[in-house]
Amino acid sequence: MSAPNTTPTNPLVTALLTDLYQITMTYAHWRIGKHEEPAVFELFFRKNPFQGAFTIFCGLDECLKYIQSFSFSDEDIEYLKSTPALCNCEDGYFEYLRTLSTTQTPTFQVRALKEGTIVFPKIPMVIIEAPLGLGQLLETTLLNLVNFPSLVATNAARMVLAAKPFPCIEFGLRRAQGPDGACTASKYAYAAGFSATSNVHAGKLFGIPISGTHAHAYVQAFSSLDDVQDLQLLNKKTQATEAFLPKVLGYRKDGTNDGELAAFVAYACAFPDTCLCLVDTYDTLQSGLPNFIATAKALDDFGYQPKGIRLDSGDLSALSLKCKSVFEEVEGSTSRQVFGNLTIVASNDINEETLYQLAERGHGITAFGIGTNLVTCQAQPALGCVYKLVEWKGEPRIKLSNDLPKITIPSRKNVYRLFGKEGTPLVDYMAMQDESPPKPGDRITCRHPFKSQKRLICTPTSVVTLHSVVFDNGAKAALAESSNLSETRSYVQTELDKFPDAIKRYEDPEEYPMMVSITLYKFLHDLWERNAPIKEVA
Amino acid sequence: MSAPNTTPTNPLVTALLTDLYQITMTYAHWRIGKHEEPAVFELFFRKNPFQGAFTIFCGLDECLKYIQSFSFSDEDIEYLKSTPALCNCEDGYFEYLRTLSTTQTPTFQVRALKEGTIVFPKIPMVIIEAPLGLGQLLETTLLNLVNFPSLVATNAARMVLAAKPFPCIEFGLRRAQGPDGACTASKYAYAAGFSATSNVHAGKLFGIPISGTHAHAYVQAFSSLDDVQDLQLLNKKTQATEAFLPKVLGYRKDGTNDGELAAFVAYACAFPDTCLCLVDTYDTLQSGLPNFIATAKALDDFGYQPKGIRLDSGDLSALSLKCKSVFEEVEGSTSRQVFGNLTIVASNDINEETLYQLAERGHGITAFGIGTNLVTCQAQPALGCVYKLVEWKGEPRIKLSNDLPKITIPSRKNVYRLFGKEGTPLVDYMAMQDESPPKPGDRITCRHPFKSQKRLICTPTSVVTLHSVVFDNGAKAALAESSNLSETRSYVQTELDKFPDAIKRYEDPEEYPMMVSITLYKFLHDLWERNAPIKEVA
Repeated sequence: MSAPNTTPTNPLVTALLTDLYQITMTYAHWRIGKHEEPAVFELFFRKNPFQGAFTIFCGLDECLKYIQSFSFSDEDIEYLKSTPALCNCEDGYFEYLRTLSTTQTPTFQVRALKEGTIVFPKIPMVIIEAPLGLGQLLETTLLNLVNFPSLVATNAARMVLAAKPFPCIEFGLRRAQGPDGACTASKYAYAAGFSATSNVHAGKLFGIPISGTHAHAYVQAFSSLDDVQDLQLLNKKTQATEAFLPKVLGYRKDGTNDGELAAFVAYACAFPDTCLCLVDTYDTLQSGLPNFIATAKALDDFGYQPKGIRLDSGDLSALSLKCKSVFEEVEGSTSRQVFGNLTIVASNDINEETLYQLAERGHGITAFGIGTNLVTCQAQPALGCVYKLVEWKGEPRIKLSNDLPKITIPSRKNVYRLFGKEGTPLVDYMAMQDESPPKPGDRITCRHPFKSQKRLICTPTSVVTLHSVVFDNGAKAALAESSNLSETRSYVQTELDKFPDAIKRYEDPEEYPMMVSITLYKFLHDLWERNAPIKEVA
Repeated sequence: MSAPNTTPTNPLVTALLTDLYQITMTYAHWRIGKHEEPAVFELFFRKNPFQGAFTIFCGLDECLKYIQSFSFSDEDIEYLKSTPALCNCEDGYFEYLRTLSTTQTPTFQVRALKEGTIVFPKIPMVIIEAPLGLGQLLETTLLNLVNFPSLVATNAARMVLAAKPFPCIEFGLRRAQGPDGACTASKYAYAAGFSATSNVHAGKLFGIPISGTHAHAYVQAFSSLDDVQDLQLLNKKTQATEAFLPKVLGYRKDGTNDGELAAFVAYACAFPDTCLCLVDTYDTLQSGLPNFIATAKALDDFGYQPKGIRLDSGDLSALSLKCKSVFEEVEGSTSRQVFGNLTIVASNDINEETLYQLAERGHGITAFGIGTNLVTCQAQPALGCVYKLVEWKGEPRIKLSNDLPKITIPSRKNVYRLFGKEGTPLVDYMAMQDESPPKPGDRITCRHPFKSQKRLICTPTSVVTLHSVVFDNGAKAALAESSNLSETRSYVQTELDKFPDAIKRYEDPEEYPMMVSITLYKFLHDLWERNAPIKEVA
């Protein structure tokens, strides 16, 4: 199977895929020559999604492709000139836009986390060093390109944790927010540990295993056994092609739906090695299950291992337990070993919460098909990423707010992940770029960026710098090095394994410490004080 | 401004953008020759989104483009053959797929609602008549293409109703579910009554007015007045170019942030006719507002009408009222009429609920900027559309369920909207296709499809057939007739105006009646009884 690793070029991802105000404010800068002043921007989020305590960074590939090809076409420029909002701008500005290019800007550099890294609030995922104008023009698009991949990867990883040890299959194409929303969800759900997707196009694009059986419409298209009277199947035991229906009818239970049985028989003959039947079109226990059992016994007689059933409605806990016990009964009473090996897929509106509920109540499910709640991230459909100026002309910048989490941490900085003896991450530690990096064995005092009473002393066994340069002065090498999907998938798993369960758990997860150096703490608070207005009361 | 009306061809929308099970179940049909049997499928939803009582149908353009170009490429076929799920399928099946085409299938027909029609649960939005195999292969993609456009249009229409009489602007690009999610949201939010978008690419693609001012990062890029010392602006009154900063400083209030004032001055000189300032970077009332007022007074002196302010944090009700009263005070005390005409845009996490809360509490806002909650449809991020077989080989089909709303209404049918005297829709009435259509003046008995005690007698003043043929036997004309965006926008408005407020209101909306003919009722219940399994108790 071919496995290319990147999405096809999206015709929507152009320099115009931005907010108008990026273009207007860059104009205001351009008019006074500020657009060439060196600036540093950080892209980060303020709060982990899904009331959780971790986030998985994804979307870097898309960002790099966008950055690499960033430019305004002549047609784009004509459009901009024609809009009422910009029609009075000076021609020189449009000329500036027309010739703007990331690969032609010597001072342009992008640092980023590795795709699939576990990340926490306030830690930059992407750091852009660029002339102010160029850096500003990239903001909205980069936010868009990181937001959904990271969100859906995090959602998927949480679901995989909740479903353990049972695999999860992504079924969301029909309910996703557009074709691109669907394929992006398939890609990053797989990166974060899903086992397969039902989306064939995503399977082809990204080399993801595809999976699926049949739907209700298939069963509805049969109304009697007439259609399957003549079906023949190779009997693996006798190596002769034999009529299949008579064998099934020998095991049939009275009162089940004829059309449904016909549908199962046709499906079994089409896919004798992978026959998985949707059993709830008419009535799961009275019709679907007995019809499947009759079909499966016949497959067994012909030397095939039937695959199992899918439940798509009703009480999934009770129904799956009942189906499982019926399968065990058949296995025990008839010594049909194939019945000890059946899959029970459940797939009706499953989300993280129902996965935990099912685990608590008990169930007989062996795989979960998850659609809407995964791909639309129903529990929280956007990750609130922001893109903030942290340095300008070598001078650190701060964004104040009455809302503490909205205050930015100023300055160009490095972030280190400090590990303990067992290779467990202890703390993420942010220091100013000119500080010397922390070393294993050092006794490092870490401060909470805002709460003066919160401090932590850490003597790490190892230290990892979280960011690396992914695009520098137009180096095309950056793109070639972009990770492939199966590597990212392994990396996410490694990342998840490293972190303690307390951080990954569903209920009341523990906050992972993100701290700053003493120097950065002092610097941040000085700058804050200098910039905050003093209220005067009379 | 150019205004093309359709999205660019999305490379993801191909015949492979489907669930694997569409391909496996079609194979099971193909093996026994069922794939050519005539079938009728309906695409509909079961429940209005957002706890509301109406839905706006959108997405038809995308569906028609997909249908028109539907085909499996050689590369697609190679991929399918290579997958473990399909590698044992017979070659003839792949040949069938390779040559399958909507335009070459004489019996293929699509009927649909007009783009922008108000629609209710169970009413088909799209009706596909096709050979079973082809109809089945279109399912997932059509669902994907209708789901999000209809959802986001409905969400937008509800927000526009909640914000009335103030306009809404779409700001969601950065938080949307991918580039396509963003542009689709921009398009259908505009169709449903939004006034503008901040998304420049969507503006260009669809001819939507673009709107936007500047962001916090812009303000942060200024730290002193040095940058703007030399700024000159044409004084419209004297027709001389004059220094602008001294004029502003003459009106400056002590203690405001220098960098912020510099940012406003630079912005005013860049956009003197449309100067709208974001005032909450440091402190709205102590710094942003007085800095804006000083800038606006200077613009007034130079003969320009300043545009206004944007509030992006804090208590939007109290802050907007305060800003409004300060503007009125300036207007009253200084006779500066421009202050009577200022815009106050609010834009922090606004959703339908906060719009109603603001209206109730009172505010001074004159326009709303809405992002995340609009474009991701946070309140309900998917419309649960389904695609069901309702007829097969001329025989009506039903999908049963223990869950009443999940039962399908069988048979090929027509749907009529019956109107009363004032042109108000009274009831949507579904009848079997061979029934004679209801006529104005007829006394029509309508039945609830499931609840036997619910009946309604209606004597309509006028009758409209809701569906029309949009694709017939490969008629390429269908696409050419596809509606353009501004027409759809007017049509949505007309539709909304027609329906009574009771159906559109936020709290406890009234359910609009969707009823069936006596014949269809009887037919449905007979079929239901025939297909439902009889429980046997011992």
